[in-house]
Amino acid sequence: MKIIVDAFGGDNAPLEIIKGSLDAKKELGIDIILVGNENKIKECAKENELDIEGIEIIHTEEVFGMEDDPTSLTRAKSNTSMALGFKALKEGKGDAFASAGSSGGMVVGATLIAKRIKGVKRVAFAPVMPKADGFFMLCDSGANNECRPEMVEQFALMGSVYMNKVMGISNPRVGQANVGTEDHKGGQFQNECFKVLKENKDINFIGNIEARDIPFDAADVIVCDGFTGNVILKLYEGVAMAIVSKIKALFTKSLKNKLAAALVLGDMKEFKKSMDYNEYGGAPVLGASKPVFKIHGSAKAKTVKNALRLTKAFVESNIIKDIEESVKHTDIKE
Amino acid sequence: MKIIVDAFGGDNAPLEIIKGSLDAKKELGIDIILVGNENKIKECAKENELDIEGIEIIHTEEVFGMEDDPTSLTRAKSNTSMALGFKALKEGKGDAFASAGSSGGMVVGATLIAKRIKGVKRVAFAPVMPKADGFFMLCDSGANNECRPEMVEQFALMGSVYMNKVMGISNPRVGQANVGTEDHKGGQFQNECFKVLKENKDINFIGNIEARDIPFDAADVIVCDGFTGNVILKLYEGVAMAIVSKIKALFTKSLKNKLAAALVLGDMKEFKKSMDYNEYGGAPVLGASKPVFKIHGSAKAKTVKNALRLTKAFVESNIIKDIEESVKHTDIKE
Repeated sequence: MKIIVDAFGGDNAPLEIIKGSLDAKKELGIDIILVGNENKIKECAKENELDIEGIEIIHTEEVFGMEDDPTSLTRAKSNTSMALGFKALKEGKGDAFASAGSSGGMVVGATLIAKRIKGVKRVAFAPVMPKADGFFMLCDSGANNECRPEMVEQFALMGSVYMNKVMGISNPRVGQANVGTEDHKGGQFQNECFKVLKENKDINFIGNIEARDIPFDAADVIVCDGFTGNVILKLYEGVAMAIVSKIKALFTKSLKNKLAAALVLGDMKEFKKSMDYNEYGGAPVLGASKPVFKIHGSAKAKTVKNALRLTKAFVESNIIKDIEESVKHTDIKE
Repeated sequence: MKIIVDAFGGDNAPLEIIKGSLDAKKELGIDIILVGNENKIKECAKENELDIEGIEIIHTEEVFGMEDDPTSLTRAKSNTSMALGFKALKEGKGDAFASAGSSGGMVVGATLIAKRIKGVKRVAFAPVMPKADGFFMLCDSGANNECRPEMVEQFALMGSVYMNKVMGISNPRVGQANVGTEDHKGGQFQNECFKVLKENKDINFIGNIEARDIPFDAADVIVCDGFTGNVILKLYEGVAMAIVSKIKALFTKSLKNKLAAALVLGDMKEFKKSMDYNEYGGAPVLGASKPVFKIHGSAKAKTVKNALRLTKAFVESNIIKDIEESVKHTDIKE
């Protein structure tokens, strides 16, 4: 298996991307193609004593920036590392493409370069996230600020396929993120989505999920428009960070507290890990006709490696066909 | 000062409501009118050895249930304790009304019985919430699932008055909850709100707030539509609860961990308190022509007392006039 990686996407490119890719190559037994400035990649590797022997490089000097208009990816910015990564994927040079670069760029590249799966209305970010015990998927978490109900229906179908085939959850329970659990909760949009989700017999729809229950065992796939999903994703991370920083402060407050910290150090680390959504490395971009993975923008080497582990599982699961099959019966609503 | 309290609203009514009201009477030096079944109140007080001497009671046998259609409050359910509480407020029998009952009922009662302040388009829930250091207001947190930009503009104005006059924040910074900090972020609705918020010179608008930054020092007043606000409010609580339960499990896992827990017990309690949004007791209902306070539905006596402390501050601040003044210049958009 060969995964194409954008060496110049994300806050910590290229060093952490290269490092994580090399670790993934070694640990996961995959081949890597790095896309980006060859000289800089080689220089960076040399400076940091990284062995990039056997790593293929697709050279370009251009980078797709966070401030770039996403739609420019296929036009003025079509020679950037992100655009060339998508192009290489399209041409079959690798089995998947992963980048920690601009989310907007990833949506455009997945849609217009890799192209959508037949019948898929919109690609969606579908991160797997930690909960009190286990994990769940949130879809869409930010690719589409504004959605139509039939798009949310497809998020449910695509997410169910992924959770089943990649994460091993049989008959995933799908819930709609909402302001209460009753059927009529939410605004007109949520009411319309509820109807569509309930009527589709291919979806194991369990109803509305109150946001308070999301971190518990509310559902396996939680669907919503991308605006709501992005707020959930980021607030989830923010609240956890705020609490962890408070606990850290507490444990260094006094000698007595430092002693207590020493006693629970191992368990605390495990706890932190269990709440860390970086453990999942980012989000698969569901709906593209080839496996595409959005790595966290702030990813360091370990997160990049985790993301590539999930990308590998994405490729191995062979779900593109399953997703095409799953959305077939939704087409009539177009 | 006299506060009218719905003795039969919320999950723990009437006992915890009565207890909290009595504690508030004693600690805050306020008078209380309880609304609800007089026999049951007296029985409950007797059984629990509570002294309700000097507490006025407005008797009714009917209760407004969580499953009741909010609009029925002024019609079929106009003889419930919630409806009569609003009526008593309207008639000047007390200075404020507080209830832990149905949120929908509270919105209807504040709008149709207490009536809105002149010029106010919609009443809004505006809870004060804990952040990493200090507190912020979230408005609207669930009164209006669907909003127009001029409503969000008023949330900003009303929230600023409250944070200034009740919470003592001078020139409160207002931010819009969004999926990123850049001006153009979000969908059409957020873009329109951004424009309106930016153009109003009475609002100290600092731009868009990414959900990740909400638990930190992002802004003093965070505005959004009530759907988004409710998701934020409830997820905030859910994530905190999930983490606290994980920490609890960690500290009871082994003898060594229990020892550590004993060492940090006091600080842990303080930490838990600092993250507990029940400390703020609920949410003022901004925009009603008299002070109305929504107590948390799950409130126990302590939370009820905290809510009544904030209700007292709401009355003392005398902000109804200030709110009317603040929204005056928004009327032209009707």
